[in-house]
Amino acid sequence: MSGNTFGKLFCVTTFGESHGPALGCIVDGCPPGLEISAEEIQLELDRRKPGTSRYTTQRREADAVKILSGVFEGKTTGTPIGLLIENTDQRSKDYANIAEQIRPAHADYTYWAKYGLRDYRGGGRSSARETAMRVAAGAIAKKWLKQQFGIEVRGYLSQLGPIKIDKLDWSQVSENPFFCPDADKVPEMEAYMQALIKEGNSIGARISVHASGVPAGLGEPIFDRLDADLAHALMSINAVKGVEIGAGFASVEQKGTEHRDEITPEGFQSNNAGGVLGGISSGQELIAHIALKPTSSLRIPGKSLDTNGNPIEVVTKGRHDPCVGIRATPIAEAMMALVLIDHIMRQRAQNGDVEFGLTIPAGDSA
Amino acid sequence: MSGNTFGKLFCVTTFGESHGPALGCIVDGCPPGLEISAEEIQLELDRRKPGTSRYTTQRREADAVKILSGVFEGKTTGTPIGLLIENTDQRSKDYANIAEQIRPAHADYTYWAKYGLRDYRGGGRSSARETAMRVAAGAIAKKWLKQQFGIEVRGYLSQLGPIKIDKLDWSQVSENPFFCPDADKVPEMEAYMQALIKEGNSIGARISVHASGVPAGLGEPIFDRLDADLAHALMSINAVKGVEIGAGFASVEQKGTEHRDEITPEGFQSNNAGGVLGGISSGQELIAHIALKPTSSLRIPGKSLDTNGNPIEVVTKGRHDPCVGIRATPIAEAMMALVLIDHIMRQRAQNGDVEFGLTIPAGDSA
Amino acid sequence: MSGNTFGKLFCVTTFGESHGPALGCIVDGCPPGLEISAEEIQLELDRRKPGTSRYTTQRREADAVKILSGVFEGKTTGTPIGLLIENTDQRSKDYANIAEQIRPAHADYTYWAKYGLRDYRGGGRSSARETAMRVAAGAIAKKWLKQQFGIEVRGYLSQLGPIKIDKLDWSQVSENPFFCPDADKVPEMEAYMQALIKEGNSIGARISVHASGVPAGLGEPIFDRLDADLAHALMSINAVKGVEIGAGFASVEQKGTEHRDEITPEGFQSNNAGGVLGGISSGQELIAHIALKPTSSLRIPGKSLDTNGNPIEVVTKGRHDPCVGIRATPIAEAMMALVLIDHIMRQRAQNGDVEFGLTIPAGDSA
Amino acid sequence: MSGNTFGKLFCVTTFGESHGPALGCIVDGCPPGLEISAEEIQLELDRRKPGTSRYTTQRREADAVKILSGVFEGKTTGTPIGLLIENTDQRSKDYANIAEQIRPAHADYTYWAKYGLRDYRGGGRSSARETAMRVAAGAIAKKWLKQQFGIEVRGYLSQLGPIKIDKLDWSQVSENPFFCPDADKVPEMEAYMQALIKEGNSIGARISVHASGVPAGLGEPIFDRLDADLAHALMSINAVKGVEIGAGFASVEQKGTEHRDEITPEGFQSNNAGGVLGGISSGQELIAHIALKPTSSLRIPGKSLDTNGNPIEVVTKGRHDPCVGIRATPIAEAMMALVLIDHIMRQRAQNGDVEFGLTIPAGDSA
Repeated sequence: MSGNTFGKLFCVTTFGESHGPALGCIVDGCPPGLEISAEEIQLELDRRKPGTSRYTTQRREADAVKILSGVFEGKTTGTPIGLLIENTDQRSKDYANIAEQIRPAHADYTYWAKYGLRDYRGGGRSSARETAMRVAAGAIAKKWLKQQFGIEVRGYLSQLGPIKIDKLDWSQVSENPFFCPDADKVPEMEAYMQALIKEGNSIGARISVHASGVPAGLGEPIFDRLDADLAHALMSINAVKGVEIGAGFASVEQKGTEHRDEITPEGFQSNNAGGVLGGISSGQELIAHIALKPTSSLRIPGKSLDTNGNPIEVVTKGRHDPCVGIRATPIAEAMMALVLIDHIMRQRAQNGDVEFGLTIPAGDSA
Repeated sequence: MSGNTFGKLFCVTTFGESHGPALGCIVDGCPPGLEISAEEIQLELDRRKPGTSRYTTQRREADAVKILSGVFEGKTTGTPIGLLIENTDQRSKDYANIAEQIRPAHADYTYWAKYGLRDYRGGGRSSARETAMRVAAGAIAKKWLKQQFGIEVRGYLSQLGPIKIDKLDWSQVSENPFFCPDADKVPEMEAYMQALIKEGNSIGARISVHASGVPAGLGEPIFDRLDADLAHALMSINAVKGVEIGAGFASVEQKGTEHRDEITPEGFQSNNAGGVLGGISSGQELIAHIALKPTSSLRIPGKSLDTNGNPIEVVTKGRHDPCVGIRATPIAEAMMALVLIDHIMRQRAQNGDVEFGLTIPAGDSA
Repeated sequence: MSGNTFGKLFCVTTFGESHGPALGCIVDGCPPGLEISAEEIQLELDRRKPGTSRYTTQRREADAVKILSGVFEGKTTGTPIGLLIENTDQRSKDYANIAEQIRPAHADYTYWAKYGLRDYRGGGRSSARETAMRVAAGAIAKKWLKQQFGIEVRGYLSQLGPIKIDKLDWSQVSENPFFCPDADKVPEMEAYMQALIKEGNSIGARISVHASGVPAGLGEPIFDRLDADLAHALMSINAVKGVEIGAGFASVEQKGTEHRDEITPEGFQSNNAGGVLGGISSGQELIAHIALKPTSSLRIPGKSLDTNGNPIEVVTKGRHDPCVGIRATPIAEAMMALVLIDHIMRQRAQNGDVEFGLTIPAGDSA
Repeated sequence: MSGNTFGKLFCVTTFGESHGPALGCIVDGCPPGLEISAEEIQLELDRRKPGTSRYTTQRREADAVKILSGVFEGKTTGTPIGLLIENTDQRSKDYANIAEQIRPAHADYTYWAKYGLRDYRGGGRSSARETAMRVAAGAIAKKWLKQQFGIEVRGYLSQLGPIKIDKLDWSQVSENPFFCPDADKVPEMEAYMQALIKEGNSIGARISVHASGVPAGLGEPIFDRLDADLAHALMSINAVKGVEIGAGFASVEQKGTEHRDEITPEGFQSNNAGGVLGGISSGQELIAHIALKPTSSLRIPGKSLDTNGNPIEVVTKGRHDPCVGIRATPIAEAMMALVLIDHIMRQRAQNGDVEFGLTIPAGDSA
């Protein structure tokens, strides 16, 4: 399989460039009988839509999704679901000047090296615009997970540059443009972002994603472990440079007595594992964190070469998010949802209704 | 494909339990004409072999590998290569007492939940013993990469619990039992490990892997990016809880001007990207870091349940590494090598000999 | 991977129902740099388009294809190619009466059994209308094969019910509505079809497909042999009930001395193998034959059940081809082309430029 | 994925050359909890074992299979099952003379063209000896199908050269060395084979395989149809040149009124479909037929070239089956079983317990 398909049983294949006529995807393998509408998918798309606050790109895209197949009389039929979003705000002319530039920290050089030619308009296929289709496909997965298993996948911004959150209040995440679960930090974030915009610079971010209600037993050792597939899924998001499960890199300095999540009849006493043991879900909350690099398109000039090898100064004038991490929350949720539905299907394939004697309570999820 | 196969074109499928009769793997897709011998593979296996120092498990396994097919008159034939390692030091009786235990931070509970039954001897399939076959398959990949492209994949211990290294001297890595590239830190590590063994505790570690000589253009956006496939590969190693590419989680606090690797005619001026832009290799050194949790088998009692749900205290008496991270270096190298050979093959499939005007020098790799 | 993707490296994923808003596909893995236009793809689509003669369905579809991505300035970019055909002649009302019918020899019952619900409009996903996207994707493959390797994939009708052809004159295939390479048989076919239409009945057909210029060495034993992948590809076409390679079922009665294709310095002396030995192409003409069953939609009543299990008589009134085999020629060509491009890419991945001492001339292709 | 793996969820990957140290396979994805032993697998292997009658090769192989992993306390654990057969009767010297020969109708030339070198001993990887592992893996699949679903997969010889069978009496199949279900034809077959052996020639055969008890709903349109996957599986068997489902090539001359299997409340009235409609099982008996070419190794000289391009006469002296088709019956059964278990798992993954109103009785299977 080529590189634009995600999943083994619930397969999402996407196409589309930033400034081409349309983006689209095919969701193949969706179980039949799920009630789904374009409106429901649209709700998720609107969460990542550009132009919703001053802290994100000002490109204005309706991102209106159409269902072209696979749904009949309001329900999925088990046949492939074709989804389409037409690009309305293309403005190719904005990007004409970059045709011969190799922008530092962008994919300009690597796409060119790989393919020998590239669609330079707005980054072409390498643009984060592509992630709209992941969110659309993820919306279907999220609905199914919730309805069939009560699984809820939710994300939040856990760090914006130097600003770390102190508390996790899920109810706050939708109340500010940062997906920040700590209301007290929002003013600080606003001030930080305004200074950054003024400076013409950008900043990295850390996003966290949790899934609650995940049954024990998901994951296919030894290579398709749940955590390995999550790492694949999350690292495939534009700008992601790191992935952690549970305690993540903090594990390096932990002793065994500290890291191991002890178990009592009340359940797990901690969750350093992040809900995965031996590559298989434990029934605890599934927890992952990702690091996103700062946006590469800056108003501050940077040294680079043109496509003839001559030194140039690159200055970006287009519409860009000063922190790409902010809008990544729904994308990360979508990817975790896609991993989970795929693994539930793999588990159903192999094991049907396995019965065993004991279920350990999820216990503490912190 | 089920979960025990890694790779799409250079495919490694493994089998074997810790205390079964044998471990083995099939390497399918290896290009024909490569000179390879069991002795060469053995050299890599010996690097991860248990029992080589007092800081690793005292289980004594010859880990002698046999080639059963796919090699004729000393060369690969293009047909599948069967590799086998017989288990010689099985001692099942050591493990009989854990049949009804759910050891905290082990895969006991999750394997049981997934499959409804489990081979409890030494962790069965979930044992890190399985990684021997990854190293064996990786040895073939490493040789091919070196011979065909001059690519060298090398790893080292970058942190042992609280002890971080100060310098990277590749020549030191093989000179101490820690794979530590900083000779000055070795005495500190030895003292730390001895205290740890005395205490009956364990500790986490951080391993770094570099590949030099990687051509630009490897990686298959948007899902099979080189970094995403690396994340998958590395997170699939036992005990790994985090993966970083290049600057990794440090990116969160970097500004765009700091993170972007500027380019001059002399090449890249820094390597925060870790050699990957837009999911495609840039020709810079490919750099990944992983976090490994502390060994879960401890002499210090831990709270858990038995398989009937009754509270118990778990104490491990067997032979275990106090820091599983130490022996993970050759495993991480093997996984990076497997990712690279697979992506070179994918690139050859799609693009043949792409020519383009400009190659940017690899420049700084730090 | 789910069932709507074909190919491992040159991957085609399709969606769309007979009477939904649109059909589409994603071609992922197409090598970059190929010049291709919607007009070129359209030429192939027009070859299978309904409504072109009185011997095919009278449904009138423009089948106008749009390229939505993956092509920039007239060339493929290596990123996924999105193709779309909007359905214009939907007329759902024609099909309302079949919602509760189980039409014999159709997929009505099996789709219902599989998915628990079905889009009954015109057969939904099971309609042969889906094959339009195969032809579109195949057009890209055909162009690449021709341009890069001089490979030509061509098909013809080798039998229409009882009427077998006597000679193979490629120049005649496009000169009649039957894809018949024997001009002398055309009047007989016309008369046969008119009688059939009058009777309200349908008939089976045999289609043959040849590829010339195929290099030796394509095919991946032992399961992904070239012939096995061809069998998969061709049997996946609607209504196909049999696939032969070379001598096919005639091999059953052949002796070894008759079947084996002897070789002289002038080349192979016959082609019972159909161009495949041991699952790998031999450089001879690649030859496959398929059997297509008669159309299942008939004006002559047939016994069946309704969805409540009550006996009914089924009579089809819609627009249908009296011989589905006729329009299958371009579809079979498309599938052979998709198999060939995929296997060339697999061969390039694994072997690069293998040199060996001897190339046997293709010799006789009969 | 490379070419030595079969199946998407129940995956069989094989290795081994005719005259290497061993053959083996990994069965990955087998559901846990199945009771299986080496003895049970051996029973199936013994059905295809060489040297059991004068009509098959005189090579004497014990073909004793060992289970190396994946089974614990007599039950599958859900982890990969490693199987191994050591080659005992290798006699490489018999084959030394063919190192520089290109035997007509063998894979000598194509393996050489593909890989640039080849293991010429007994055909190396291209030898039908490889099919032993298919039978071993198939034995596991067959047991599971029977136990979980009551599905029985059975094959027989339906034609030996010119001799067609007149009746299908399953009880006779194991009573003669031909897998012939028509006892009256056995003497004729014996006489035919003796004349053939005397002549030094070989002959083709036709094998039929049936599966009873198959539930409706298996198959994944549009490419992974049940019939397409069967065609792939069966065409991948050595020497197979044709595959038919149900009426197969007879469909070409059938009219629609004849071909369509009408349905009454008593069930299907015929089975031209061979149990598959629209690529999905209908609940009728699943029926496939294959054509096998005559053995290519003959005592009668044939024209060919040596590896330097010089004309030679090839005469085979080794031990060979005069009709490879005879021993193909258990292999074809194995492949059908592997397809069925894979599709049951895919159906379970996607649809869980689909309920629908009506099950049509299987009815006539002829």
